Amino acid sequence: MAENRINLAESQLPTAWFNIVPSLPQPPGPPLHPGTGEPVGPDDLAPLFPMALIGQEVSTDEWVDIPGEVLDVLRLWRPTPLVRARRLEEALGTPARIYYKDESVSPAGSHKPNTAVPQAFYNKVEGITRISTETGAGQWGSSMALACQLFGLECQVYMVAASYRQKPYRRVMMETWGGAVVPSPSELTETGRGFLAQDRDHPGSLGLAISEAIEDAVGRDDTHYCLGSVLNHVLLHQSVIGLEARDQLRVAGEDGPDVVIGSCGGGSNLAGIALPFAKDKIDGAPIRLVAVEPTSCPTLTEGKFEYDFGDVAGMTPRLEMFTLGHDFVPPAIHAGGLRYHGDAPIICSLVHSGLMEAAAYPQGKVFEAAVQFARTQGTIPAPETSHAVRAAIDEALAAKESGEEKVILFNYSGHGLLDLAAYDDYLHDRLVDA
Amino acid sequence: MAENRINLAESQLPTAWFNIVPSLPQPPGPPLHPGTGEPVGPDDLAPLFPMALIGQEVSTDEWVDIPGEVLDVLRLWRPTPLVRARRLEEALGTPARIYYKDESVSPAGSHKPNTAVPQAFYNKVEGITRISTETGAGQWGSSMALACQLFGLECQVYMVAASYRQKPYRRVMMETWGGAVVPSPSELTETGRGFLAQDRDHPGSLGLAISEAIEDAVGRDDTHYCLGSVLNHVLLHQSVIGLEARDQLRVAGEDGPDVVIGSCGGGSNLAGIALPFAKDKIDGAPIRLVAVEPTSCPTLTEGKFEYDFGDVAGMTPRLEMFTLGHDFVPPAIHAGGLRYHGDAPIICSLVHSGLMEAAAYPQGKVFEAAVQFARTQGTIPAPETSHAVRAAIDEALAAKESGEEKVILFNYSGHGLLDLAAYDDYLHDRLVDA
Repeated sequence: MAENRINLAESQLPTAWFNIVPSLPQPPGPPLHPGTGEPVGPDDLAPLFPMALIGQEVSTDEWVDIPGEVLDVLRLWRPTPLVRARRLEEALGTPARIYYKDESVSPAGSHKPNTAVPQAFYNKVEGITRISTETGAGQWGSSMALACQLFGLECQVYMVAASYRQKPYRRVMMETWGGAVVPSPSELTETGRGFLAQDRDHPGSLGLAISEAIEDAVGRDDTHYCLGSVLNHVLLHQSVIGLEARDQLRVAGEDGPDVVIGSCGGGSNLAGIALPFAKDKIDGAPIRLVAVEPTSCPTLTEGKFEYDFGDVAGMTPRLEMFTLGHDFVPPAIHAGGLRYHGDAPIICSLVHSGLMEAAAYPQGKVFEAAVQFARTQGTIPAPETSHAVRAAIDEALAAKESGEEKVILFNYSGHGLLDLAAYDDYLHDRLVDA
Repeated sequence: MAENRINLAESQLPTAWFNIVPSLPQPPGPPLHPGTGEPVGPDDLAPLFPMALIGQEVSTDEWVDIPGEVLDVLRLWRPTPLVRARRLEEALGTPARIYYKDESVSPAGSHKPNTAVPQAFYNKVEGITRISTETGAGQWGSSMALACQLFGLECQVYMVAASYRQKPYRRVMMETWGGAVVPSPSELTETGRGFLAQDRDHPGSLGLAISEAIEDAVGRDDTHYCLGSVLNHVLLHQSVIGLEARDQLRVAGEDGPDVVIGSCGGGSNLAGIALPFAKDKIDGAPIRLVAVEPTSCPTLTEGKFEYDFGDVAGMTPRLEMFTLGHDFVPPAIHAGGLRYHGDAPIICSLVHSGLMEAAAYPQGKVFEAAVQFARTQGTIPAPETSHAVRAAIDEALAAKESGEEKVILFNYSGHGLLDLAAYDDYLHDRLVDA
């Protein structure tokens, strides 16, 4: 019997990241300064990011070498397995072959460390000793705390106060990895103190936490800021996912995927699995690329393609993307990582060019798929990941209908072990089907 | 650079379990009936277990074939990786080479499914359609629910009421995998109703939950009972861990381990990693085997070697083992899986014969090691597993002192992602150093 899991040796870890930008038929327009409206230059970004990352942000090189020090850390969990979901296929009775790339095996339980590690590294090389960042439920903050610990940097995380109080476990992860975590709004910044003066129990928001993390970084020479999605250099770092998957499908004897699926919040896990295959598609391969989002935050399926701010407060540069408006507040669905009004400009460019499709699902259908996955394959996916699971199952059912031996590839971006309260709600009919 | 992780192909999964019993210089005495004091026979056990497992319980065959249907399920996560803990070695400055067998990669996050799966299988083959079992914090119950789901059996779990109320996440895992979970004492059994009549808010205990699960199984023809540790057939099933590790050390170019370490509660994860090497030791190899337990429940280090009941209530057969007395109540340390008054008779036989050592640690030292591990290797170990981490670190430090290039192998029996509250207590000085 053929293997369920295709493991690559550590020596087969990609040694360069893949950059889709030079291949895009309609590359994203430049980020525009929030004040002047002019394209943002390196000097505007230097207080926040090291020059190496600013260079990657605007790079038009197709390949960017991964530093050896970064590879050494990535090898703690990479290459990640590519898994054939045979039991799910059998349960569905589909002729399709379903593969998933298991990014849940990282210490933080998701794909996020793939970019946290190089971001920590490049900052360290530039003499930075401290990182500030924001986090919602804690997926990104925990990945950044881990990366900082492994490179000996301090890590200051501004965690949305409501999550800090209600979801303590990822806060504990961050602290276990040596991160300093404060609820946002905090006493550490002028912005935070201002909000606290109005309301001692302010619940915070991601936009507010971003403002605090940026203020922290701008105010200290030893500190830079890190972001976990949306930006070009983040998507670049995630390309290892798709590069490995392409090699692994070859090992599995597949000519390639017919459809590649990823859930889409800011776009980084989707980009990770899809961008190397997007290049194949641009070069003529008959591959479908599918972004999956919640119907409650339908950026790609219902948003407008235009310049908008990346944050709620309108402090970041404006980016060319599909957006629901930077003041859009999505319902509090369990897939918190997909509650973003915009999307990565690279992803938006692909959708706008017709190279990528987008689909949206309500969370009831998403959790139905997640439970079916858990009951056949064993592992319990994160609510965000479960959007991709839903789409993969629907593709497999369509293949059953049409009798096609389709090869379906999706990104298993994270496990749901710190999201079991969401499953509790679903299993006991307390889920709001937003 | 050599690999950090040694992966075996699925085709290299062992196809037979290893049984240490025929090699033991002093095999454990037979279990004695709690009423008559006579050795227990197959007929006594038939209401609870299928004949295949009863046969394995008393088997003196050195090898027992693993059924193909069991292998097919184990292949969902096995063979598990053997990992070289290079960053931990560097942090310790030790010449020792530290390897750990990563059993945390199973869907339930521990080694427990290794035996839950064959137990479910043999019951199904014998026409049983429903399993009853007990669980404390939920590690065993979740593994059993998973295994039942994969073989299409119903699973009724009696979960200690205090854990049911305070630690809901593993209850949600069980339900996600289709298990029915009730707090024990419950209304489902006469035993449970009796306790509830006295106290509606009774916190329950593992002994009480065992009583309910057994009453459930005895009272229904469609139902059998499953146990997650202590018994010979459970230890037999766990031997895949050590068998794989032995092959993987060879792939890593090692002649073998100098010391093999496992934490010890009932003894199943320790047995899994150690028993194949115990055979090598009996055959003359210079290997040390080390059981690690909490100082607050020092069964092997301070218990008496004598016949005692397996449960608190004195309902089970009496077993020959080291015991603190079946009425011993250990403090409520975070490593709940190590709070057992006795130990598996096979493990006790090895310690009694001088083939295995035992060490005990207070939980403060254990969490110190756990955090050092998390900050170097990335992943966060379970509190139970952290006992083995502590002992491995101490072995590595002793090797630094003596300058020995020792090969240390330990069992990473589970991850701590559902035990982060324990880390919270440790990091914020709220840990009782029992």
